[in-house]
Amino acid sequence: MNFTKEFTALASITESYLEGYFNQLLKEVPEKKLVESMQYSIMAGGKRIRPVLMLACAKMLEVPIEEIMPMAAALEMIHTYSLIHDDLPAMDDDNYRRGKPTNHMVFGEAMAVLAGDALLNEACELLLKNALKAGKQMESTLEAAAIVLNAAGKDGMIAGQIIDMESEGNAIEAETLKTMHRKKTGALLKASILTPAVYVRADSSTRKALTEYAECIGVAFQIKDDILDVESCGTELGKPTGSDAKNHKTTYVTLFGLDKARQMLAEITEKALNAVKPFGDKAWFLKEAACYIASRKN
Amino acid sequence: MNFTKEFTALASITESYLEGYFNQLLKEVPEKKLVESMQYSIMAGGKRIRPVLMLACAKMLEVPIEEIMPMAAALEMIHTYSLIHDDLPAMDDDNYRRGKPTNHMVFGEAMAVLAGDALLNEACELLLKNALKAGKQMESTLEAAAIVLNAAGKDGMIAGQIIDMESEGNAIEAETLKTMHRKKTGALLKASILTPAVYVRADSSTRKALTEYAECIGVAFQIKDDILDVESCGTELGKPTGSDAKNHKTTYVTLFGLDKARQMLAEITEKALNAVKPFGDKAWFLKEAACYIASRKN
Repeated sequence: MNFTKEFTALASITESYLEGYFNQLLKEVPEKKLVESMQYSIMAGGKRIRPVLMLACAKMLEVPIEEIMPMAAALEMIHTYSLIHDDLPAMDDDNYRRGKPTNHMVFGEAMAVLAGDALLNEACELLLKNALKAGKQMESTLEAAAIVLNAAGKDGMIAGQIIDMESEGNAIEAETLKTMHRKKTGALLKASILTPAVYVRADSSTRKALTEYAECIGVAFQIKDDILDVESCGTELGKPTGSDAKNHKTTYVTLFGLDKARQMLAEITEKALNAVKPFGDKAWFLKEAACYIASRKN
Repeated sequence: MNFTKEFTALASITESYLEGYFNQLLKEVPEKKLVESMQYSIMAGGKRIRPVLMLACAKMLEVPIEEIMPMAAALEMIHTYSLIHDDLPAMDDDNYRRGKPTNHMVFGEAMAVLAGDALLNEACELLLKNALKAGKQMESTLEAAAIVLNAAGKDGMIAGQIIDMESEGNAIEAETLKTMHRKKTGALLKASILTPAVYVRADSSTRKALTEYAECIGVAFQIKDDILDVESCGTELGKPTGSDAKNHKTTYVTLFGLDKARQMLAEITEKALNAVKPFGDKAWFLKEAACYIASRKN
């Protein structure tokens, strides 16, 4: 069982599903520019970490991945819309993402606002239609969809963006930093892991273990991001000089220092690994994913 | 049966529901500024035409209005988010709406983007939770929710905004004008009328009659808007001088002239009234609503 091979396989299934989905929309929707704008960002080379985690979790729980795919795609649409709106001049004002011009650079600001709105709306329509087709599983499919939407809104991702925005330019405390990341990026990651468990009505110990795992990798992901930001730019007189530091952003490194941050990353990764121990070999992908998050180079 | 009294009563039920809903969010959600921004626009004095039509239609079909209320509220949240995003500097750049500063004037652009996103997300969560509570009616509740979301996205409201945006500054043909309004404002109005019918699984002749009625009042609403725009500003050398004309916008009046537009309005109103004739007295509110749309002063 090779992690990279499995990751690539699951990412590629996601890629094909999304490509087919938006090609179909291009045929059906008369307003081509709108669909092109949505498609541009959805196919802009994302790593598909969230859908891959969702599909891997489904496999571990012995749920056919085609039953989970629409929810994984909806989650990726939500992630994508949040990036489009995040990049807007009124927000982070980013011209490039993953080396490509951002949506508003290609399609203009107004279209970028609408393409983001349309992606969120589309994700919801997909979740709903998927539930309508689920027959006897309708209720559990809806409960799983509710996990995704709850993670995306005022209780999750959007709340995290608000905290981020409100703390801009100010030093923040460790607790605020943790809450911000738990909501801003952690919520969708957690939903990726929990959606298949809710769909299949996994018992409470399974859900509890997966919740613990998901929360740990969410934090690990962010600590590693903060470490990478420093490592990629070197340090000057012992102070980090990465882009976060230049923006005077509070990070795990600015708060705790590089050594302590590395130690925290090792500890939280260990905690993630322990959480999924009860699943044994079945959790091989989740275990390797936790190690991958802690050791990735970008 | 007094139209104004019934309209006010249904609008007031909507108002109370929304007020209670967002006051509850204010208590529950730690990010108060986000909820305040959502609440500001949702309580900014809208006429509640869409929820009123939905509730009135529910009453006509003998559906308890409390079963429809969450969907009416979700539709109003969607309508409101579209106004917030429409008013953004990157879109219509409006500083005032209904005499009050627009969302971004009060809370800033970034918050306005996120408040809009959060309102759409909240509408979807509400639709979903409402279906989960519907017991035996889960499937029909989901089908009704799908009507709302379909009207709001790439097949409806957002598509209409794209056509509007793409035709800006250009003269457009009658067919394009009709398609634009059918999607931009017509789709949500139609969803207001059809949602209760789908929820209660009304027979196909009922749905057909209501679809016809809804499409007619959608067009009537727009023709009247265009006529009011001219009447409010008078005419100069026989040419309209309202804000649409100043913006070189194609309207029913610029395309067909004032007299012909008035005639079209009378005809389409007649068609709406005929469509609901089979319901007899039960359709009294819908009939009076059609007359109200054609005769309103603002």
